[in-house]
Parts: sequence; structure tokens; C-alpha cells
Amino acid sequence: MKLKIDINCDLGESFGALKIGNDAKVMPHITSANIACGFHSGDPMTIAQTVKLAKKHKVAVGAHPGFPDLVGFGRREMQLAPEEAENYTLYQVGAVYGFAKAEGLKLQHVKPHGAMYNMAAEDETLSSAIVKAIQKLDDELIVFAPPRSALAKIATRANLRVALEFFADRAYNPDGSLVSRRQKGAIVHDARKVVQRAVTLVKEGTVQTVDDTTLNMGKVHTICVHGDTSNAVKLAESLKKGLTRARVSVEPVGRFL
Amino acid sequence: MKLKIDINCDLGESFGALKIGNDAKVMPHITSANIACGFHSGDPMTIAQTVKLAKKHKVAVGAHPGFPDLVGFGRREMQLAPEEAENYTLYQVGAVYGFAKAEGLKLQHVKPHGAMYNMAAEDETLSSAIVKAIQKLDDELIVFAPPRSALAKIATRANLRVALEFFADRAYNPDGSLVSRRQKGAIVHDARKVVQRAVTLVKEGTVQTVDDTTLNMGKVHTICVHGDTSNAVKLAESLKKGLTRARVSVEPVGRFL
Amino acid sequence: MKLKIDINCDLGESFGALKIGNDAKVMPHITSANIACGFHSGDPMTIAQTVKLAKKHKVAVGAHPGFPDLVGFGRREMQLAPEEAENYTLYQVGAVYGFAKAEGLKLQHVKPHGAMYNMAAEDETLSSAIVKAIQKLDDELIVFAPPRSALAKIATRANLRVALEFFADRAYNPDGSLVSRRQKGAIVHDARKVVQRAVTLVKEGTVQTVDDTTLNMGKVHTICVHGDTSNAVKLAESLKKGLTRARVSVEPVGRFL
Amino acid sequence: MKLKIDINCDLGESFGALKIGNDAKVMPHITSANIACGFHSGDPMTIAQTVKLAKKHKVAVGAHPGFPDLVGFGRREMQLAPEEAENYTLYQVGAVYGFAKAEGLKLQHVKPHGAMYNMAAEDETLSSAIVKAIQKLDDELIVFAPPRSALAKIATRANLRVALEFFADRAYNPDGSLVSRRQKGAIVHDARKVVQRAVTLVKEGTVQTVDDTTLNMGKVHTICVHGDTSNAVKLAESLKKGLTRARVSVEPVGRFL
Repeated sequence: MKLKIDINCDLGESFGALKIGNDAKVMPHITSANIACGFHSGDPMTIAQTVKLAKKHKVAVGAHPGFPDLVGFGRREMQLAPEEAENYTLYQVGAVYGFAKAEGLKLQHVKPHGAMYNMAAEDETLSSAIVKAIQKLDDELIVFAPPRSALAKIATRANLRVALEFFADRAYNPDGSLVSRRQKGAIVHDARKVVQRAVTLVKEGTVQTVDDTTLNMGKVHTICVHGDTSNAVKLAESLKKGLTRARVSVEPVGRFL
Repeated sequence: MKLKIDINCDLGESFGALKIGNDAKVMPHITSANIACGFHSGDPMTIAQTVKLAKKHKVAVGAHPGFPDLVGFGRREMQLAPEEAENYTLYQVGAVYGFAKAEGLKLQHVKPHGAMYNMAAEDETLSSAIVKAIQKLDDELIVFAPPRSALAKIATRANLRVALEFFADRAYNPDGSLVSRRQKGAIVHDARKVVQRAVTLVKEGTVQTVDDTTLNMGKVHTICVHGDTSNAVKLAESLKKGLTRARVSVEPVGRFL
Repeated sequence: MKLKIDINCDLGESFGALKIGNDAKVMPHITSANIACGFHSGDPMTIAQTVKLAKKHKVAVGAHPGFPDLVGFGRREMQLAPEEAENYTLYQVGAVYGFAKAEGLKLQHVKPHGAMYNMAAEDETLSSAIVKAIQKLDDELIVFAPPRSALAKIATRANLRVALEFFADRAYNPDGSLVSRRQKGAIVHDARKVVQRAVTLVKEGTVQTVDDTTLNMGKVHTICVHGDTSNAVKLAESLKKGLTRARVSVEPVGRFL
Repeated sequence: MKLKIDINCDLGESFGALKIGNDAKVMPHITSANIACGFHSGDPMTIAQTVKLAKKHKVAVGAHPGFPDLVGFGRREMQLAPEEAENYTLYQVGAVYGFAKAEGLKLQHVKPHGAMYNMAAEDETLSSAIVKAIQKLDDELIVFAPPRSALAKIATRANLRVALEFFADRAYNPDGSLVSRRQKGAIVHDARKVVQRAVTLVKEGTVQTVDDTTLNMGKVHTICVHGDTSNAVKLAESLKKGLTRARVSVEPVGRFL
């Protein structure tokens, strides 16, 4: 059977007159869109436009909920009570769920944003709160999570489908964690190398770490590309072409998970 | 056949630590709850609690979207482009829709809040935008609107069910409009009189105007009580009892419209 | 020389239509008002009214900046970069400074709110950021801080005047920290006991801890009363009367520090 | 005596991670910066950076308060009570005043933003509210206003200094109003033409209208350039050079008004 992989990107992160990202140019090269829900960014006009753009390009839509921190773009740690995290997730996912429904689409997935994603990767209490919200809203939703994370574990235990995520343009430590952005070599800039890493991962389940050791990541379902960097469009395009050329089928994770 | 009427109230208008209204005490005496959606007030914790409270009391839940004006409580006119009004409505109703779904409930209705309600009563463009959002999300949703309003007209034309609304504790002008709050006699404070007005309206379709003439309002489906006044609880209780005593069945509008 | 003490209270924490606290009733019994600045609560209308009310009662005005977390009322920990904390403080204090100036008053002090206060008590980096903002704006401003806290230390080192603060209605641990609100006995409810604790502290510099040992707190300049509890007004009134009766002069800290 | 003119630009309109404008590149070519205050855009970090940038380039700083409508960028009409408009202005100007003070600068002016500017141009009640706030805070502040506007009239009557403003890249109607952006020819794109219009206005007090008639505008003190258009930097640079070449001294309005 042919190998399959999803390519996802954070989109719809503009807010009113303040624009960010290259949504229209990235969309043709991805298969799943993580749409900002209004808390870390993403106003209703932007959500509507992003859902329509995804529909046009047959890209699956997902919600990308974050902390209620517009001025910090959801990138700062906040200590929420579990019920707060649950209801903030439910609110945001519900809102984007409605935009998808209004366009005749079914929301495919949920991927927490920024600090919420990073904290949930290690925090079971926060992960449980997020998972509870998703499960209550629609238990067919797929949860995007890092391999071996608390979020992946909790979502699996709750019988939700989990799409394990690989960051093709980020360096990994030997323990499977991402190299901090503050360290040198955290970002892989060379598009060719990014593609090669993605192909190796999908075909062999391994990634070359920052220490040049080989890490066994196991099965991964979706590859994240960033939409707001200067070469985001080129990278996404190269990735899709490179994977396709390597006879990997690039399609929305909801079709094969 | 027995006459039927719905009693609705704006609830869930607290925001975090800032509390307003007597939700827990009003809920037993109403049949439809209009739940604030986060723009004029109503944070996710409050929405969750209000939906659960409504469920407990078998009160039908509706969304109460407003202008994006938290500091003004949605009471100030704002000039929105039609697409903005549409997407702001879709966002807010979708969010509360999700909370209802999470509790196994179906959202019954949508009632615009404050300045949005007042402007939509007279503005067909704004009404069309609101109606479009509701229709796209779920065309079984009921729209709450004043009798003879632009909103009622546009929603009816779009084949949505419309619940015409009567304000039992507000004085009416001979032309069917509400007496401005700035004028003397705008509010009917006496609970007995409020009940009597409600009963007369439901039984005969008429209301005594501020000029002491008799206005033919026609069929009305839901009566609004306010939740944040000092005697709100007593008024709601009297109303339900008074109508029941007059052999009118008080139940959620979704059951009989 | 007569002993002197200040009584401070957090006020102006309403936000638009959402009201909290008993500002008008508490104001006659305090000498310093900590006015919310818009981030954790406190809209411009409320700030204006609170400054005017303080002026009327000859109460000194201070700024009460918090984290940008309206929905969490500034009570949740947030991880801010030092420059963010500095500029958020400068923005908020500047805004209230302007309202004071507009009324012909000079801002007396700054007291961080909620989680910002608690974190600054222990975090020198955060304290340095807050102190830097205050110093840049006006180095005659007094900083309110807990005895022996990082904030007190950093502000003193920067040559700012520091008013050490005592919570008369909160129980203390033997190490001088507050007993957590989650623990039994954290709050002293009995007004007479609160007054007695205040008098003992001012006269002898000691407080009876939760373990019934005697803690030497040293010189303290201001006593905090809470404005949003049910017996806030009575407590503030008793405190002022009790201290006065014990021949302690209750006056704004700016007059004697 | 040499003719003098000021060149102003709206700057500091980014919000957190969401960036807009070419502040660093425009700053060398202007003499007055209108700095967003946090309501329509402009977070504390951006304000701090913009004030520092202005200081570095010896550009005078002003506050650019707007309606509390971040998602609408302050471009939408809102109906505020006069006291709300007054206190919203006081809050915003006070905040930026503080940042200027922290850098050892004196705030030079206030220019309302977007819909607030447009509404104040015609509405004496709104203008009075804005003027009252400015006057209370610091009566040495200069008010930027369109020639013959309600705002200019009210500010003059209040004995505030008024800088009359000309939009060099906007077409004018014969009655002195701006040609609506929705009409063809509303924007003058050709940099050479913009410069020529500015020079003619400064030297002769006239402008060629959209109907090709000559309008006598009278004395104008400041010329507005836009910072967020594609050719903003080039335009600002050309304007400053062109005016200087025509022997007009380009300097902050506070120096010659």
C-alpha cells in the first residue's frame, strides 16, 4: 500500500487590518489548514475567508485554538484552571466549527496553538482539559499532537484519533524534543534538506538529530510547515512535490487515519 | 387548543470575575435563555455554566450575539459592513452552538443583543447579514424579532421561523415602537400590571399604549423579561404564574412555532 | 512622635456595565486608592469616576496595573518578557497618571495587581521591569510591596520610596508569607480581630501567625483592605476608627514616607 | 521670514506580532509622529519602540487616539456618549504621554484617528469631548484638525493651539472636503504631483480640486503622509526634499505654531 502523509500549516492568523502570513499562496501546497480562532489571533472575517480559501483548494479545515492573549499572539505561558482551558477550547473550536458547517464542510481536526501546544505536550492536566472539550463537541475530530507527548497520550486514551506531527524545518534533540529556537541550528533553512528529512521520516520513520545521531520517531501522520516565514511558500511547494516524487501520497489526514 | 407562550430572558452576561444578573434565580421561571456569546459580554466559563443551568431547568438555549464592544456592553451603535455583521454573528452563534452541542442540546434560537437588535429592527441590510449567518449555520434556528420589524420581515422571507417578541415591562407607543428609556413611564414597574399586560396580549393580541389607546399587536410568541433589574426574579415568577393561572401554557417557543 | 499608618484598597475595578466593589462606600474610610488601569479591569469611565471620588474624599490616588488578562481579572500567572512587563506597566500607570493630572492631583503610588503582585514579590526580573517603568515615568512615585519581597528590595535599590504593606484580614505563615486562600483560616473574618491585629502590628511590629507564634514584621506603612467582600465597608470603617482610637494617625503614605 | 511646514505620519500601528507600516523607514522623512495608543491598534511594546525611534530622529511625538475597536482598526463609526469620548481620549493620550515623559520628551500634539477624526471634523459634541480631555491633561498640547472643521473650531475656542492639516496625496472637492476613497481619483499616486501640490499649498495657500478648480485653503500647518502604502517611504522622502528645495523649512509644528 502506498505511504500517505498530510501537510498542515497555521493559517488565518491575520486580525482585521493587521495582516500576517501568505495564506493564499501557501494553501495550494498543503492538505490541512489550522485556522486561528480569535483568541491569539484570527477575527471572524479572516476565519470566514480562510475557510472559503481552504474549501476552494480542497484543503481540510481544523481549529487552532490558543490562549486568550491577542497582544502576545498566544505565545506566552498562562496558568489556566482546567475548566478554563476546557471552555476556552470549546468556545474557539465551536466558533470555527460553525464557519466550516456554514460552508458545508466538516471540521477535520484541532491543533492547539503556540504556548498552549507546548504546554499541553508536557502537561496531562491541560491535555485532559483540551481533550474533554474536543470530545464533548465532536468525537470524530482528530487531535494534532507531538509524538510521545502528554497530549497524544491523553487523546489516545480518550479514544480520539491522534495525528502525530513532525516539524520538517525544525531540528530535533536526541530525546525527540525540538531544539529551542534560541539555540543555533534550531531551524533548517535549506528547502532541499527539509524535503529530504520529510521523505526519510515518512519512509523510514527516522530523523537525523542536531547531534547527528539517528532518532527513531516511529509513524508520523502530518508534517507542519510555517506560513509566516519568508520562504514558507517555496518550502511548502517543495515539500509537496518532493514527497509526491518519492511516491508518497500527500492528502488530508482525515482520509487515512 | 390551549394558548401557548414562551418567556425569554438575557442571561450569561457576566464576564470572568465581573458578575451581572440573577441567572440562577431567574432560570426556573423562564422557558428560553438568550446566552451572551463573548462580544458584548459572556466569557466561555459563563457560557458553559449558563448552558448547564438551562439544561437543568429544561430551558431552551439560544445565542445572544452582539456588537464587538465589551466596554460598551454592546449598547452603542456601530457601523459594520454587511459581511462583518454576518461573520460576527456566525462566530458568536457558532461558539454557543458548540456549548449546547457539548451538553447534548440543540440551539433553539438567536436573538441579537442591544444596539444590534435595535438597529436590525429598522435596517434591512443589517438584518439580511444576520439572517444569512443564521441560515448558513442551521436553518432550523428560530429568529427572535420585534413584530413588524425589518428583522422579522427578512427572516420570514428567508424561510426561517420567527418568534415575535413582546416586552411586558416596557411601555409601547401607538405605532408599536417601544417608549424610549429616556422618557417617563418607559418601564412598567408594577408586577401585577406587567402580568395583566402579558395575559391581555396573549389572549387578545392587544396592548394598552403609553397614550392609553389600544394597540393591536397581533400574534406574539415570546415575552422578554429582564434579568438584571432588582425585581427581575419576582417579575419572571409572577409572569409565569399569572399566565399559567390564565390557562396559557408557558413553554419554549421551539415546541409550538 | 505620633505613629502613622495608611489604609489602602483596590478600587475602580468595574468594567463598563459590569460592576464590582463598593467604591463609594469604602472611599470615606481609606487614605490611598489603588485604581485599576484597564488591563485586568477598569475602563476609562470607571477610572475617571474613581479618581474624582478619591479627590472628593481627599484619598491619595495610585495606579494598580495588572496583567493583560481581562477575562482572568489579572489573577493568572503569565510569563512576560521583562520588556513587556516594563512597557505594560508604563502604559497603565501613564494612563491613570493622566487622569490624576486632569483632576489636578499627583499620582502617589503604584501597586501591582493580583498575579503580577504575587509574582513580583518573588521574582527579581519581573520586579526590575516594573520598577524601571515607574522610575522612568516619575521617580517620586511610591511602590507598594510586601515586606522582605523581591519587589521591595529592587525598588529600594533603585532609590524609590517603598511602602511596605500588611494584609490585616489575611493570616500569615511563620515565614512572613500569606496563608494560601485555599487553606482553612486564610481569611480573618472577625472585624474586631482584624482591628486588633492592625493595632498590634502598628504599635509593636508583630503579628500572630496561623501557628499562633509571634512574627516580627518590622515597620509597615500601609494596611490593605479588600473592597469586594461582603463586609468590606464595615471592616474599613472599623479599621480606621480602631486605629484612630489607639492614637495612630491614619493618613496617605505619601505624607509620612 | 522663511515659510515653515510640518510633515506628519500615523505610526506605531502594529499590535504585538501583527505588523503594519514602515515606521523605521518613514521616520527620517517626517517631523511629527502620530502614535497609536492601544485602542484601534498599538500595544505598549510598539508605543515604546515608536517613541524611541522618533526621539532618535528628532521627530516630535503626538498621540493618535481612536475608537475602542481593535478588530475594526478604529475605522468604523461608533456612537459614544460625550463622557465616554472624553475619557477614552484622556486614557489613550495619558498612556502615550507617559511613554514620552519616560524618554524625556514632551508630547507635542494629539490627532484623532480614523472614524474618530472624520466624525469629530463634523460633530461639535464629539469635538468638545476630545478637546476637554486634551485641555484637562495639558493645555500646551496642539490639536491636529482639518481646516474649517468642527474640531478646529472647538479647539480654537478652547484656546488650544490648532495645527491645520493638509492631505497632499488626497484629492479635494471644491468645498474643501476630501474626495471619498470610494471615488475614482481620490488618491494622488504620482509622487511628483504630490510634492507640487504641497509646495503650491504652502506657498500660495491653494489646491487644485478634483474638478480642476482652484480652492483657497488658507494657511495650513502640517501635511499628512500615509505610512502603510507601498510607496509611503518614497513619498515622504520626496515631499521633504521637494519642500526643502522650494525653500520651505520642514520642522515640527510645535516649533512655529
